[in-house]
Amino acid sequence: PSEPTSCSENHHQPLFVDRESLQRQIDELSQFSDAPSPAVTRVLYSENDISARRYIKDLMRHSGLSVREDAVGNIFGRWEGSEPELAGVATGSHIDAIPYSGKYDGVVGVLGALEAINMLRRWGFQPKRSLEVIMFTSEEPTRFGISCLGSRLMAGSEALAEALKVTFDSQNMSFFDAAKFAGYANDGQDISTVFLKKGSYFAFLELHIEQGPILEEEGVPIAIVTAIAAPASMKVEFKGNGGHAGAVLMPARNDAGLAAAELALAVEKHVLESGSLDTVGTVGIIELHPGAVNSIPSKSHVEIDARDIDEKRRNIVVNKIRQSAMDIATKRGVVLSEFNVVNQDPPAQSDESIIKAMANASEQLNLNYKRMISRAYHDSLFMARISPMGMIFIPCYKGYSHTPEEYAAIDDIANGVKVLALTLSKLSLS
Amino acid sequence: PSEPTSCSENHHQPLFVDRESLQRQIDELSQFSDAPSPAVTRVLYSENDISARRYIKDLMRHSGLSVREDAVGNIFGRWEGSEPELAGVATGSHIDAIPYSGKYDGVVGVLGALEAINMLRRWGFQPKRSLEVIMFTSEEPTRFGISCLGSRLMAGSEALAEALKVTFDSQNMSFFDAAKFAGYANDGQDISTVFLKKGSYFAFLELHIEQGPILEEEGVPIAIVTAIAAPASMKVEFKGNGGHAGAVLMPARNDAGLAAAELALAVEKHVLESGSLDTVGTVGIIELHPGAVNSIPSKSHVEIDARDIDEKRRNIVVNKIRQSAMDIATKRGVVLSEFNVVNQDPPAQSDESIIKAMANASEQLNLNYKRMISRAYHDSLFMARISPMGMIFIPCYKGYSHTPEEYAAIDDIANGVKVLALTLSKLSLS
Ligand SMILES: [Mn+2]
Ligand SMILES: [Mn+2]
Ligand SMILES: [Mn+2]
Ligand SMILES: [Mn+2]
Repeated sequence: PSEPTSCSENHHQPLFVDRESLQRQIDELSQFSDAPSPAVTRVLYSENDISARRYIKDLMRHSGLSVREDAVGNIFGRWEGSEPELAGVATGSHIDAIPYSGKYDGVVGVLGALEAINMLRRWGFQPKRSLEVIMFTSEEPTRFGISCLGSRLMAGSEALAEALKVTFDSQNMSFFDAAKFAGYANDGQDISTVFLKKGSYFAFLELHIEQGPILEEEGVPIAIVTAIAAPASMKVEFKGNGGHAGAVLMPARNDAGLAAAELALAVEKHVLESGSLDTVGTVGIIELHPGAVNSIPSKSHVEIDARDIDEKRRNIVVNKIRQSAMDIATKRGVVLSEFNVVNQDPPAQSDESIIKAMANASEQLNLNYKRMISRAYHDSLFMARISPMGMIFIPCYKGYSHTPEEYAAIDDIANGVKVLALTLSKLSLS
Repeated sequence: PSEPTSCSENHHQPLFVDRESLQRQIDELSQFSDAPSPAVTRVLYSENDISARRYIKDLMRHSGLSVREDAVGNIFGRWEGSEPELAGVATGSHIDAIPYSGKYDGVVGVLGALEAINMLRRWGFQPKRSLEVIMFTSEEPTRFGISCLGSRLMAGSEALAEALKVTFDSQNMSFFDAAKFAGYANDGQDISTVFLKKGSYFAFLELHIEQGPILEEEGVPIAIVTAIAAPASMKVEFKGNGGHAGAVLMPARNDAGLAAAELALAVEKHVLESGSLDTVGTVGIIELHPGAVNSIPSKSHVEIDARDIDEKRRNIVVNKIRQSAMDIATKRGVVLSEFNVVNQDPPAQSDESIIKAMANASEQLNLNYKRMISRAYHDSLFMARISPMGMIFIPCYKGYSHTPEEYAAIDDIANGVKVLALTLSKLSLS
């Protein structure tokens, strides 16, 4: 009910985003990277990840937030409201970056949230419900193959807490050794302290680049996300006999690499068969063993991602991919030694009252917006399990993401930050 | 003309192979490996390669050979003949091993050659033409992408000598820095000292496992190689826009990984279209960039090997592969940023008089033999450019090679060593 413009002393002053400072922070954060600029590689609990975390915590304190970290390194910056016993309003995203990606994915939702807090402070706003900025641990699955690790745990995944006890990275370092290296998991392998109860937050918001081309193409500055598509990911391994590339004649071969190639094309085929534009499928990883030009691959490893806004339709694709993997193995005389559906999460719906608050904020700011479905995975998917959830998308260049070409204009980011700040203030007072 | 049995003092004593010692040496050498046993990984100028070289030089000295190394680390062990001004008779092979391969490829032709020398000594043989055992540097292309590096140079490849000046491994170490690390290339980048004149040898022989299943299947202990098939290798790169696996809809994609998958299957198709069993083609390497499960590949790297005993037919396959790469790029909207035919060597014929000498030796030893074409690449292919050449194959388990399952029975190896020793003695006296 109370509009933030009701803060009488400020209602003449428009919401002002410090674009220069925000852009500088985005650029500075991108320097914590294992890949040379403009590419960003920032992997969970690496030296650069640890440095970037320190950078974020410093900014949080600079914004007057009190900082807390949980046992896996989710970072919370809290601005205590006038009624601190009420469930707070939270916003945030991630700062980890897959190999050779860009500097905006996730980052806009963390640094943008801090700038939203700064704006509200400049504006003289006093929250009723406490406001929190959250930096989630490992939204990306890079190191341990688990996406949204921090938010999944926060949402109370007992299965993940158990699985982490036997989770290792490709260098055979255990999850907990890696966490300890970064200064977390101090109480050993019991990380149930990370779980949050349902109702811990009154609302959770995430600001993010669209990672698709629609807003840019249509010239619309803001999207209000109504649902997050349901992702599934699979790990597949084929095994053959290998052999010398010159000596083994074609009929005698069972080439695990060609099985992988055929499966990759089958993924594309099954996705296109769904008949819906909303079905997508990707083979992002193909690894051949031993990986020599004169050696027939004796082993191949394939990782597949399939998504849809319709869970049933997506599961049909997953089942077709499984069937293809079996058929290819039979046809080529290779062994399908692994077909593992690593995750198969249900989709999430945004909360209607949060959608309304975001829509009101956009209208008040005179920003055109459209409703949109998110086909990308976000921490919001898991936060929706314990809190009403909403997401704000802003345009990005050609829809590029997960590449160094990823780019969002500072004016577009500023629009998102304004909508976020205004929505936070509304929700904080309600 | 003079049969070795004319050495009167020995002609009652049959040629005796010290199987136990030879097998022990094969096992010991396999321990110089970057991969755990039974796999062998021994990469040019690595610590383990350097140790293995020391092991070979010690064995050479133990066999009474005088040891010489050239500027790239080809190792020569010489038994001076009674007429040292005559061109000598040489035999040898390689001991480098591609990642996760076995312990017999190449090794049998080096340790077997040394055992042949030991046999001839035990037998009381005195060479007329000097005998030499050669260990060739980097038959495998593992580190610098160049196969038969040592023998190609020995055969006088000016092009390779030039190319090496700008050749780097995947860690960006230059060829010459790597060579210096191993104690070679002491005179800088001028390695023309490695070149040998045509006529430097009266004959060159190589003993090798078949790397195919035919001898084992047919129960024939010896193959005499009449020709070595002509190999071609290609490096291909596709580039697309990449993007987020969830956000970019299928019609908007130009997936460099799917282009690679499609090309791999096209290689198989074009090879099978040749209609000849002798045409083989392999995609041993597919690398996707950035290589994350939730990222559309923006770049793919493919390495292809195509071989045939018929050079023209092989070149038709190479051309079809090139055409497919272009068509796939067009169809998928990706850029074919590289299509590089790295080498396209002509085949080599064995020398008729050496074939006869090997055949005579087999008959004398009462060993059944067959004539065979080598579809695998060997240093003999290049030695044939400067010397009459011949090769001896022995059976190996199921034809496996370039895998840890690679195996040759010591009795089969001993047969090959006997044929080699007897042929060396014949050629030395002629
Ligand atoms: Mn991402
Ligand atoms: Mn993200
Ligand atoms: Mn080999
Ligand atoms: Mn070999």
